[in-house]
Amino acid sequence: MSRSPTLFECVPNFSEGRRVDVLDAIKKAARVPGVRVLGLDSDPDHNRAVLTLMGERKPLAAAVFESMITAAALIDLRLHHGTHPRIGAVDVVPFVPWQNATMEEAKELSYEIGERAARELQLPVFYYAESALRPEHVNLADVRRGEFEGLSDRLLHDPPDQGPSVPHPTAGAVAIGARHVLIAFNVYLDTPDLGAAKKIARAVRGSSGGLVGVKALAMDIQSRGRVQVSMNLVDYRTTSLPRALEMVRREAERLGFRVVESEVVGLMPFAAVEDVAQYYLQMPDFDRKRVIELADD
Amino acid sequence: MSRSPTLFECVPNFSEGRRVDVLDAIKKAARVPGVRVLGLDSDPDHNRAVLTLMGERKPLAAAVFESMITAAALIDLRLHHGTHPRIGAVDVVPFVPWQNATMEEAKELSYEIGERAARELQLPVFYYAESALRPEHVNLADVRRGEFEGLSDRLLHDPPDQGPSVPHPTAGAVAIGARHVLIAFNVYLDTPDLGAAKKIARAVRGSSGGLVGVKALAMDIQSRGRVQVSMNLVDYRTTSLPRALEMVRREAERLGFRVVESEVVGLMPFAAVEDVAQYYLQMPDFDRKRVIELADD
Repeated sequence: MSRSPTLFECVPNFSEGRRVDVLDAIKKAARVPGVRVLGLDSDPDHNRAVLTLMGERKPLAAAVFESMITAAALIDLRLHHGTHPRIGAVDVVPFVPWQNATMEEAKELSYEIGERAARELQLPVFYYAESALRPEHVNLADVRRGEFEGLSDRLLHDPPDQGPSVPHPTAGAVAIGARHVLIAFNVYLDTPDLGAAKKIARAVRGSSGGLVGVKALAMDIQSRGRVQVSMNLVDYRTTSLPRALEMVRREAERLGFRVVESEVVGLMPFAAVEDVAQYYLQMPDFDRKRVIELADD
Repeated sequence: MSRSPTLFECVPNFSEGRRVDVLDAIKKAARVPGVRVLGLDSDPDHNRAVLTLMGERKPLAAAVFESMITAAALIDLRLHHGTHPRIGAVDVVPFVPWQNATMEEAKELSYEIGERAARELQLPVFYYAESALRPEHVNLADVRRGEFEGLSDRLLHDPPDQGPSVPHPTAGAVAIGARHVLIAFNVYLDTPDLGAAKKIARAVRGSSGGLVGVKALAMDIQSRGRVQVSMNLVDYRTTSLPRALEMVRREAERLGFRVVESEVVGLMPFAAVEDVAQYYLQMPDFDRKRVIELADD
């Protein structure tokens, strides 16, 4: 048997969720031999898109950087409006160690891309999560505070980890880092009441007393006339997707509202699907061995 | 790209769920090159085991028949006690058309195995489901009525489709047929009250007014001190696993009981897992493209 390759996942987030031609160009730029383009998820309300790539270090780095060049050229943040906070045209570039890869290697990959972004695209680069060089940059929400509009002022007292100390005029700045697998999970409520979504987000979010592995924001999704609790499950094996959803359902109910739909942005590992079946079917021994397409001899 | 092979699934059911050496021998007999042994699920209360095999026609037929020879030699139904109805040591041999295979081809495979079972093992053979030659043999429950103990009398007025008109002295008879994918789904209640399980089975079962695609039996699972509603979901894309479970939960609740656990016997297709995530997460667009390990470029 040949040794299985060392794989990384990269899920760059772009500040464009509406113009199909721009989204197509970004996706096309990422088509590098050896890299699997697993999906491009765009949201017109967030005005944002998530590209999911999987590959070995060298081809993946090329695919990611090509997509960054394209996005930086085609997206002008001065004209950008959306519900999701952002600091750049290429807003966040997370690398995730996958098959055979270590977090240390994912960090190296993030620094490699950061150097190129600073040098070739003149982007101020913040290293976040596992790649953070300063404690105040570990948390992505802190890096993004003030957004694109506040970037000039912010760079005066918080210089980037790499690249120029002034924002790129149209593409802003970029956060790059290595992190563990994360599930981006949005839950829609049967109301346009943003206050309700904020209360629920606050109850569920770990930083305000909720579930440890959950980050949460309230979003107004005008195209649907509904609000959304937009969550990141940052340690889904410990704080599972079903438990986060049930807490949102419970809190919504308490306020007189109901969950009407949910969605995952990007992809999720099969282990999270196992959690769902185990929890809702009360089937403790459900795993991939139970699934015909996934069972091994 | 090379053409993908024509695959069949076969899930023979054996009347042995306790003796590990016998189960090992059956599994070992099925190890034929080119056949994937996806699992052997045994249950001591049912005193029954389900082997899941996947392969192309020729090697699969060989693997199935080898396992049948072994089971017929090692299982004596005169000494067999269990909660699950059965007519033979090799009780049922269902063939399911899988990748590239047609139902017609699965039927041919069932007749091929039936002929060998009659000729080489001296087993009376009933063809059931899609392979049935007589309408009264379509339904497996009808074929199994009277069980092993009633087989001698029954064969006097209901001769087998193939093979001798007297039972094999120790191995009984066998039902062989082609059918669509089926999910064997058991739900445990928090009570030893078999009457309650019977009421629930009756409410959920299609033949008594319940859900069209559901067959159901009540079982006393003494090793757990609980009863079980044992279901076959025979058209899980139309009557889904979550809807069957929710009906059992609702009926149990009505009687003052609760579901404590569930299990799948053998394997289920990934499409059934999609149903679970779509239903319980209220995530209408969940499919394999959302799962990192399953998404294609």
